[in-house]
Amino acid sequence: MKLPGQEEFEVSSACENVPTGELDSGPGSGPSPDGPSDTDRGELGVPKDPLLFIQLNELLGWPQALEWRETGRWVLFEEKLEVGAGRWSVPHVPTLALPSLQKLRSLLAEGLVLLDCPAQSFLELVEQVTRVESLSPELRGQLQALLLQRPQHLIQPTGTRPCQGSAQPREASHSEEAPLKEQRQNPLRRKLPPGAEAGIVLAGELGFLAQPLGAFVRLRDPVVLGPLTEVPLPSRFFCLLLGPSTLGKGYHEMGRAVAILLSDPQFQWSVRRASNLQDLLAALDAFLEEVTVLPPGRWDPTARIAPPKCLPSQHKRLLSQRREVQGSSARHGALAEDRYGHWPQAPSPELQRTGRLFGGLVQDVRRKASWYPSDFLDALHPQCFSAVLYIYLATVTNAITFGGLLGEATNGAQGVLESFLGTAVAGAAFCLMAGQPLTILSSTGPVLVFERLLFSFSRDYSLDYLPFRLWVGIWVATFCLALVATEASVLVRYFTRFTEEGFCALISLIFIYDAVGKMLSLTSAYPIQSPGYPAYGCFCQYPDLGGNESQWTKTEPKDRDDISSMDLGLVNASLLPPPECARRGGQPRGPSCHTVPDIAFFSLLLFLTSFLLATALKHVKASRFFPSVVRKVLGDFSSVLAMLLGCGLDSFLGLATPKLTVPSEFKPTLPGRGWLVSPFGANPWWLSVAAALPALLLSILIFMDQQITAVILNRAEYKLRKGAGFHLDLFCVAMLMLLTSVLGLPWYVSATVISLAHMDSLRRESRACALGEPRSFLGIREQRLTGLVVFILTGTSIFLAPVLKFIPMPVLYGIFLYMGVAAISSIQFTKRVQLLLMPAKHQPDLLLLRHVPLSRVHLFTAIQLACLGLLWIIKSTPAAIIFPLMLLGLVGVRKALERVFSPQELLWLDELMPEKERSIPEKGLEPEYSLSGDSEDSELMYQPRAPEINISVN
Amino acid sequence: MKLPGQEEFEVSSACENVPTGELDSGPGSGPSPDGPSDTDRGELGVPKDPLLFIQLNELLGWPQALEWRETGRWVLFEEKLEVGAGRWSVPHVPTLALPSLQKLRSLLAEGLVLLDCPAQSFLELVEQVTRVESLSPELRGQLQALLLQRPQHLIQPTGTRPCQGSAQPREASHSEEAPLKEQRQNPLRRKLPPGAEAGIVLAGELGFLAQPLGAFVRLRDPVVLGPLTEVPLPSRFFCLLLGPSTLGKGYHEMGRAVAILLSDPQFQWSVRRASNLQDLLAALDAFLEEVTVLPPGRWDPTARIAPPKCLPSQHKRLLSQRREVQGSSARHGALAEDRYGHWPQAPSPELQRTGRLFGGLVQDVRRKASWYPSDFLDALHPQCFSAVLYIYLATVTNAITFGGLLGEATNGAQGVLESFLGTAVAGAAFCLMAGQPLTILSSTGPVLVFERLLFSFSRDYSLDYLPFRLWVGIWVATFCLALVATEASVLVRYFTRFTEEGFCALISLIFIYDAVGKMLSLTSAYPIQSPGYPAYGCFCQYPDLGGNESQWTKTEPKDRDDISSMDLGLVNASLLPPPECARRGGQPRGPSCHTVPDIAFFSLLLFLTSFLLATALKHVKASRFFPSVVRKVLGDFSSVLAMLLGCGLDSFLGLATPKLTVPSEFKPTLPGRGWLVSPFGANPWWLSVAAALPALLLSILIFMDQQITAVILNRAEYKLRKGAGFHLDLFCVAMLMLLTSVLGLPWYVSATVISLAHMDSLRRESRACALGEPRSFLGIREQRLTGLVVFILTGTSIFLAPVLKFIPMPVLYGIFLYMGVAAISSIQFTKRVQLLLMPAKHQPDLLLLRHVPLSRVHLFTAIQLACLGLLWIIKSTPAAIIFPLMLLGLVGVRKALERVFSPQELLWLDELMPEKERSIPEKGLEPEYSLSGDSEDSELMYQPRAPEINISVN
Repeated sequence: MKLPGQEEFEVSSACENVPTGELDSGPGSGPSPDGPSDTDRGELGVPKDPLLFIQLNELLGWPQALEWRETGRWVLFEEKLEVGAGRWSVPHVPTLALPSLQKLRSLLAEGLVLLDCPAQSFLELVEQVTRVESLSPELRGQLQALLLQRPQHLIQPTGTRPCQGSAQPREASHSEEAPLKEQRQNPLRRKLPPGAEAGIVLAGELGFLAQPLGAFVRLRDPVVLGPLTEVPLPSRFFCLLLGPSTLGKGYHEMGRAVAILLSDPQFQWSVRRASNLQDLLAALDAFLEEVTVLPPGRWDPTARIAPPKCLPSQHKRLLSQRREVQGSSARHGALAEDRYGHWPQAPSPELQRTGRLFGGLVQDVRRKASWYPSDFLDALHPQCFSAVLYIYLATVTNAITFGGLLGEATNGAQGVLESFLGTAVAGAAFCLMAGQPLTILSSTGPVLVFERLLFSFSRDYSLDYLPFRLWVGIWVATFCLALVATEASVLVRYFTRFTEEGFCALISLIFIYDAVGKMLSLTSAYPIQSPGYPAYGCFCQYPDLGGNESQWTKTEPKDRDDISSMDLGLVNASLLPPPECARRGGQPRGPSCHTVPDIAFFSLLLFLTSFLLATALKHVKASRFFPSVVRKVLGDFSSVLAMLLGCGLDSFLGLATPKLTVPSEFKPTLPGRGWLVSPFGANPWWLSVAAALPALLLSILIFMDQQITAVILNRAEYKLRKGAGFHLDLFCVAMLMLLTSVLGLPWYVSATVISLAHMDSLRRESRACALGEPRSFLGIREQRLTGLVVFILTGTSIFLAPVLKFIPMPVLYGIFLYMGVAAISSIQFTKRVQLLLMPAKHQPDLLLLRHVPLSRVHLFTAIQLACLGLLWIIKSTPAAIIFPLMLLGLVGVRKALERVFSPQELLWLDELMPEKERSIPEKGLEPEYSLSGDSEDSELMYQPRAPEINISVN
Repeated sequence: MKLPGQEEFEVSSACENVPTGELDSGPGSGPSPDGPSDTDRGELGVPKDPLLFIQLNELLGWPQALEWRETGRWVLFEEKLEVGAGRWSVPHVPTLALPSLQKLRSLLAEGLVLLDCPAQSFLELVEQVTRVESLSPELRGQLQALLLQRPQHLIQPTGTRPCQGSAQPREASHSEEAPLKEQRQNPLRRKLPPGAEAGIVLAGELGFLAQPLGAFVRLRDPVVLGPLTEVPLPSRFFCLLLGPSTLGKGYHEMGRAVAILLSDPQFQWSVRRASNLQDLLAALDAFLEEVTVLPPGRWDPTARIAPPKCLPSQHKRLLSQRREVQGSSARHGALAEDRYGHWPQAPSPELQRTGRLFGGLVQDVRRKASWYPSDFLDALHPQCFSAVLYIYLATVTNAITFGGLLGEATNGAQGVLESFLGTAVAGAAFCLMAGQPLTILSSTGPVLVFERLLFSFSRDYSLDYLPFRLWVGIWVATFCLALVATEASVLVRYFTRFTEEGFCALISLIFIYDAVGKMLSLTSAYPIQSPGYPAYGCFCQYPDLGGNESQWTKTEPKDRDDISSMDLGLVNASLLPPPECARRGGQPRGPSCHTVPDIAFFSLLLFLTSFLLATALKHVKASRFFPSVVRKVLGDFSSVLAMLLGCGLDSFLGLATPKLTVPSEFKPTLPGRGWLVSPFGANPWWLSVAAALPALLLSILIFMDQQITAVILNRAEYKLRKGAGFHLDLFCVAMLMLLTSVLGLPWYVSATVISLAHMDSLRRESRACALGEPRSFLGIREQRLTGLVVFILTGTSIFLAPVLKFIPMPVLYGIFLYMGVAAISSIQFTKRVQLLLMPAKHQPDLLLLRHVPLSRVHLFTAIQLACLGLLWIIKSTPAAIIFPLMLLGLVGVRKALERVFSPQELLWLDELMPEKERSIPEKGLEPEYSLSGDSEDSELMYQPRAPEINISVN
């Protein structure tokens, strides 16, 4: 079954959105701080021309009621007037018939071409373009009057049509200077960047002309041509295509052809610099050289093509032009350059070894310090409020659930309160100090497994747990400091996608497994009563025969039929519910006294409801329904809304479902201990040295866990501007390790899933544009405030018990399931697992399937599955203590894969490891067959790879 | 949120699938009885040429290891060899760069063109094409050897590569005659129709040539050219494009250009008839005239375009060519013809008035009689088995549920047994005799409402119900006979889509309302116990103090701790469950004795599971996962599988959910009556006359209900071959009315939803093709057997109680909900209601939105919504007796809409009523603006409209 939103992982998503850069590149706007800087084009020296808005006005109604009407407009794509429906069509890729381009070419070649025309008003312009020999003075007058007639735009309210035909030329020229009210109020105006210019095409059939009249004008200074354009932009280009009716629809199509030409960035560039007719025609010919042709028998020319998710890069077009100039000998050089550009870049500055002790840490601190003020100022955006709410709920849920787990694992040595306090203290400290403040710390996952093992070890050997744990913590902090000092974090370059995916899949599966497992454990806590169950009975028995009978009889005689408090003959028992019974001093007896019916199935319903609702609401964002604001709110708050609905449903029915419980008293869970752990307790002194051994394993685990998460969070596709801080992050983790060990709190590292959710809730996207441009991802609101507030709130939540107690646990499990499923669906590994279930001919057109044989893809997936299975088994058995080593083993497995797969295959399935990266460009990159291998998807290869572990976690 | 499968209602679905016709048009295959006959093309005199399979073999590896490799193939679309992955790409619309077509043109103009070449083998052919002056004898020999080298095809097992370069010309020619084993075993071969021919293009860079070598050959008699093509087809066309490496990738692109040209039906038609080079070049120029051009700045030329759902009709291309010849003066005539072709056709023969009494009935009988034998033979297909199972379950469920409703409505005068018996008898009789045997009869919907009203009337006036009802039935039969005699059924032409949609939406809503309502009524039957509920207690009290005490004590002392049978001190009570208690002679006492916990929520879970699962499984059919067979089974049996899973889940947990109950004794529900209703009973004689009044209303209802359903079932888009039988159907309904009234069984008319589900389960679709062709709908398996078997099974189900009692009612309600939702989602009305929730810019590109202003669309929708609301209110109030008149009123409302909407608008929103239909072509069809209104979607208008109430009910 096709999952919604699955398309986005197919080939077409493998691109960035260039158009935003194009829109932002107006001369007045300057380099936009929000937009991705389109450096490619700058490098190649393409000056940034103003954006051009092109409008086609057609002359309709010949011969009776001539009127100009705007029937098409272009910025990036074409919008056509639907005459019958009175609306603009959806923006679509413009298509043309080839002959109309050719007819246009010959008309322009014979017609009037004015480049750098000095006209200052529409009247002057009209006088200039009608000064052709073929027109008699009388005709010229008629034509001028016609041209000056005010055109109809769709934005006009349909009721008030302008007077047609009666408008005098003088009047028209009079109203020319000031833009009309309707022009100024056109909502399209807000969509166009400042500095945009207009191009206007007038086309139509005009019976009184003896021969076609073509004129192309480039104005020296752009002028607002009165009511000619629907938005009051200064016009740069003007094109007139009129003629007798022999050509029929030809003028309409030629008009579209001019407009489409002008909307092409390359043609526009050329024509802005053309100095004569030849330059203009050469630009048209260059355009023709590059058009894509669809055969008539296999493509309906009237079909409208939706705007592609990515436009071809103009960089590439320039390059190909340059190649043509340099001859085909340069081809292979350029190709190698292309390929190289697509590869993992040279290590980012954060990962370059300085060679000095703590050199990386110092650099990290220096780099992050410069961003520190902005880390707080950048948080001033309403979106951050939503992020705080969402991540706070996730964090609190996490703290509760895994605090409970910790309590189980350590048999009460630590518990929910430690979990809350530790999360708040460690999380807030990390957000204030760390290199990547978007990270959310958590005690989930492998570290918890390790802690459980440590506890059972110390119980088996009758050790004092917390002091032993303190020494482990001290050693881990020491080892981690050593790793920071030696700049070991640069080794993260060996964590390729293979390692990341294995780790991410494991964590996601743990999330899913825990959510489902916790949910199912509810059905044991609240068993379902099957009909064969011996009895439903429970009644209330009073302890002393005759003792309190007088009190009992007093309340009773009011209503003989009220069976619940009926005196049952000779026995002092009643059918009062257990709590009431206990209050009155009785004792509930019977097999059903401790079962609560309906809870199991209701919990399951709540679980499924919150999971499905969160998933569905997330997809509302991409649906057609509701205005954008509503869709955005529903999508951004999907988890919160799903949670609220679950709580509402629960409190509406008022059943005794298990609720979130928050400790009401602020003291350590283990009775009798203070907040500071004593250094030795009942343990022998040498244990402080022996603790180094488990600490070594834990250090590996912490390093892997922390750094893989950091690599995932700092991936290039998230467009982070403030850089990473691998060394600083590890340093913070080491310090917090020390702190939490001393205080007897859980240990913390970066949590992949929640951190990704955090980043996702802080996505910045371009405004949607009316012109068919897809929304593009601009980056993340990088700041320290959301995380800080989340953890402060978590801290205060210790006192929020009265509010939080309304949240049913099944709802939280549902949200957990959603987070796990979203995280695991976002990795390429999942897509490859799905490929295993698809017949080859139904597989999506993934880039990797174009380049790697299917059997090799399946082999790679199978190896990953096997590794994952092995990790899962190790995690679940007593051998779990060597789990950190196995995680490190993933890197080794990946290394060994180089013997099984060719570098070409690994390049597509994974990415290359550092040494290979340097050795391949010379020897391994020759395409297998230069004739068919080089250009077919070079365009796609040009784009950076799609985010493979993307932030669709929410 | 975008519903899955919603795309199909957008513009692109408004077409038939022409390609099937194209594939079927091989000379050997003849007019396929299954395929839609492509009469358009026959009319215009395009001879049906054999299908052409085109293959591009490229010369790779220059200069070291020259080898030919197949790198592309074409039938309808292009498939490209993914060299790296070693697989064929997904079929896609071929795209070309314009220059490659121009280079090809000049190469062909200078090269060798052999038309009707008499070569009988590849060797002869090679000798002919290499006989050019520019080649020295030595070079010629080298070239011939190279050409005869065996090419590599992808079908070869990758392990056994053929020897390269060493193949001797003689050897090659030797192996030429018999197709290779791998060629014969190529699975592609089965996809190509008999009579298909091949076209082979050889292209590549060959350094030893001084100048380009181009040759185009049309063989007089197609010859199998040995191992040249991957399938052993006789080749008709051969093209050679070789040259020095100056052109670089040019040869590859030129080779593709030739292949794409040959795959164009128009070019192929011309080149098969070309007699010289000029004809060939003219065909190429004609192709160029018609190509669609995509601008380079807005379209990535390397993007692959998925095959469109419908190909442009070649009819249209011919027409446009003919138009061009006739000059533009003929344009408007042709346009009117186009438009007219798109309109509702002249009434079909079934709906033409004969003018004779019972003339229509006689014609119907005559027409259907000729199909009678095939009505049984056509049922011999496994698909019919699935249909029987699905429809049987739906029918039985229907009979049970609505039998229960009837029992409630008539206070036991009729019941489940009557419902079963009536369904079986009436349904089977109808399937045997009716004009449209795919119809499933049912007593649901408005008729049941009417029956309920009739009963409460007769109760209020103390009438004997069944005799009164008998007379109503007699009168209804009489009126209906009169309607048959006067051929009133031809009036169904006034039932436009407006009426159909109103009726269909009402019925679907009744389905949904009943399903949800029945489900919710379960929660009252099995209340949820909230914690505040007084007590959970229920215990077992024994009637006589001391009487049976001895018996009690006997069973007890075994286990003192078994609280369920504990002696509670002095009282003779126990906690045995109620049934056990009753068995032992005790009496269950307490508030919880009659509540069964967990049932309400579990039922809700079953309900949701079966609904969601049926919906999800239905969508599996269109997903990418699993082989086609599995997908088809999952999709076709979605309801049955969902039901089975629900039953399995239920029996796994073993809870006491309400199950389907079937009467175990065969006798009328009303005690004391026989199977025949007495004509008067306790009623006065004049009541038999007075019954005519309600009978009149009921007749209107029956007529409307029956005929609207019949119109929907017989819509043209279902491609029924055996025709409808409106008069015969009504006659059968009248006769069954009489029969069921006499026997005191419920009344029956055609049921829209189940009949649509029946038809849907009998869809015939074309085999999926490897070449990118979408599956196309071929028609319905029209036969009488599935319906007959369904009703026979329903009849025997009266005795199937032991098996059917395992089906939980909530599962059935879930399936009902699914049927109702599927039916209501399939009408255009629903799509228009959804438009109300979409901002204009996100609306899908529906054809009607291109032609009707949005406000008018919304107005039309609002009027329909208001009518629906009114009908619903009337149905739910005591005024329901005039409901039939209101249904008739829909036709009046539609008539009145002609004053609000223009015929143009109604043409798009609805369809035209009979008179208008005739009067419009003259006066109303002038397009609003001839310049922009005429051609943009004429291609789309050409296709018959998309099924608006389509059979996606399952």
